[in-house]
Amino acid sequence: MKKSINRLIIADSEKCADLLWATRFFVPDPVFYLEIAGKKILIVSDLEISRAKKEARVHQVLSLNQYLNKLRRPGKKPPTSLDVLDTVLRERRVKKLVVPSYLGIREANFLKKRGYHLEIQDPFYPERAIKTQEEKKLITASLRATEAGISEGIKVLRASRIKQDKIYYQGKPLTSETLKGVINCKMMSLGFVGHKTIVAGGKQGADPHCTGYGPLPAHQPIVIDVFPRSEASGYHGDITRTVLKGKASPLQKKMYLAVKTAQEKGIRMIRHGIDAAKVHGEVAATLESFGFKTENRNGKPEGYIHSTGHGLGLDIHEFPRVSRLSEILKQGHVVTVEPGLYYEKLGGIRIEDVVFVTRKGCEVLTKIPKIFVIL
Amino acid sequence: MKKSINRLIIADSEKCADLLWATRFFVPDPVFYLEIAGKKILIVSDLEISRAKKEARVHQVLSLNQYLNKLRRPGKKPPTSLDVLDTVLRERRVKKLVVPSYLGIREANFLKKRGYHLEIQDPFYPERAIKTQEEKKLITASLRATEAGISEGIKVLRASRIKQDKIYYQGKPLTSETLKGVINCKMMSLGFVGHKTIVAGGKQGADPHCTGYGPLPAHQPIVIDVFPRSEASGYHGDITRTVLKGKASPLQKKMYLAVKTAQEKGIRMIRHGIDAAKVHGEVAATLESFGFKTENRNGKPEGYIHSTGHGLGLDIHEFPRVSRLSEILKQGHVVTVEPGLYYEKLGGIRIEDVVFVTRKGCEVLTKIPKIFVIL
Repeated sequence: MKKSINRLIIADSEKCADLLWATRFFVPDPVFYLEIAGKKILIVSDLEISRAKKEARVHQVLSLNQYLNKLRRPGKKPPTSLDVLDTVLRERRVKKLVVPSYLGIREANFLKKRGYHLEIQDPFYPERAIKTQEEKKLITASLRATEAGISEGIKVLRASRIKQDKIYYQGKPLTSETLKGVINCKMMSLGFVGHKTIVAGGKQGADPHCTGYGPLPAHQPIVIDVFPRSEASGYHGDITRTVLKGKASPLQKKMYLAVKTAQEKGIRMIRHGIDAAKVHGEVAATLESFGFKTENRNGKPEGYIHSTGHGLGLDIHEFPRVSRLSEILKQGHVVTVEPGLYYEKLGGIRIEDVVFVTRKGCEVLTKIPKIFVIL
Repeated sequence: MKKSINRLIIADSEKCADLLWATRFFVPDPVFYLEIAGKKILIVSDLEISRAKKEARVHQVLSLNQYLNKLRRPGKKPPTSLDVLDTVLRERRVKKLVVPSYLGIREANFLKKRGYHLEIQDPFYPERAIKTQEEKKLITASLRATEAGISEGIKVLRASRIKQDKIYYQGKPLTSETLKGVINCKMMSLGFVGHKTIVAGGKQGADPHCTGYGPLPAHQPIVIDVFPRSEASGYHGDITRTVLKGKASPLQKKMYLAVKTAQEKGIRMIRHGIDAAKVHGEVAATLESFGFKTENRNGKPEGYIHSTGHGLGLDIHEFPRVSRLSEILKQGHVVTVEPGLYYEKLGGIRIEDVVFVTRKGCEVLTKIPKIFVIL
């Protein structure tokens, strides 16, 4: 029955993970991708056609330029690439198309005007959330590269000295920027691109997505959140460790223990068939049970201010979410488990691992140890 | 009059340059961005709200979570973020919205059903193509970082030795991957992320977007195309140099001269008011005048198989294009000029500079010299 579904994506695969998943072809400008009667078809320009024929896992690659030339009529307005799409669809007698929710309104209007019936499917490929063994391997490889980067950063922190509550490395104040450079370069040398890597110390860590800047503070938590993408496969790693260079206070230690305990409880609950909202609820309750409240203070939300996790794959944030919305986890899902606590005064503490959901539980794919205090 | 236009973007600013341009706020998950009566409004979740208030150049930041809580009714389906958008618009009595062509069909359908009138504008911010002095500086900074990366790569090529038509560096065959790592690490250390950097030698260079793999060949052209993005500003650099380690044949030298001459002619023509299609036509004619034809050979397009350039800014490829389509260049446009020749047997040669269009000509922002043969 699947063969009778015709699909259309208009996108570039640097931004659109569905297209990359369907074709395994990296292309930086928008192309037309069709599934017609079970056959995968790409329509690309001359710039990409040879590479598409070699690299794209599709049945047919059509030349946009050849169609444009064919449709050109002297004295008439030159044909557009959407005219080419229309022609290819008419040649194949396609009238109904399943499209993603992100199909652009301009293209949607064009297709409707030409008489096509569009049906939105969201997520477009629900099966993308269920990872194959091959995909699990690729994500694991990305996690190993992420760990190599973080380890390189931690080495630098270990080799650093503390002077007047600041961290010095090789005689100079160690900055977020330097440490991000160390982590990212290590990953880059392995073929993984780190982007918006977070190394945020002290107050900066209280904003979960603040990437960090300036000299790193001693005796305060430093959130290190690293999520590179493999240049070759497109799959992401995503790991967070929080470390503290120097001496931790009892409150800092309690906060770390709360996050670590909540994360462990979350991971223990995850298995095929469980509602992700239950996992999120338990994680939140555990943090609360340690006395760490979530509330607005001076108009600023503090405490546990984000959800517990997200699917990980070709997109850094993808289906399914582990949040307060109901979502049944299934065998083969790959999700992050990343509780955190954020207080203006204390900074942020977050711990994030990636797990592969199995029938009876889950497999933790992240291997790098969790060490809070670095002397 | 501009104040009466109300606009809407639903996107994340990692992918959507319009949103980044309008707000200067990096956010990895979709948010609502509104312009209402000349005021810029962002609606974001608790995860991002503190950072948005600090970093986003908008007039107002609204809390998605607060609205969701306000709209929740016991026993009813929980409100969605689109319900929040609807509420915010109704509170402000907005009924007409200018939206980008890439507004998703699902959101468009929702808004139409709720009675909103949508008007597509494409490009959404035509004024984004006209760069300010500040933007020119940011692009120039990205070009300097790109040049630092390429220079580092060329240093390695200079320090390499040739043995049996292969290039050796520090005793080992020099690969595309190694050279890309050298270039990208240098840029990363400066805060610029290189991604899909191209180092493609010999036949691989005949595919303009082949990124290159394996040992690099001596005596054959190596296309080095580098286009990093500043982590801080989001603006891109984009430079291509083609080099040859070893001895160049007369035909290789002629091909390089053809591309260099065509590029120089193109750059000389660029000024405020010229049709970009004329520039492209002249560049193509110059390549042809050297005897380098563009045609299909065995079903594979060869010769000058792409357009002459593209706008450069927060998007790597943006408006305006320098192609065979008519497009009047204006003062303040920043475009690449990057002719190339591609033949299965000879490989590829491409040279790319970035120019800033002025009233009487253009300013070449790229400074790194063009050197073909590296001994």
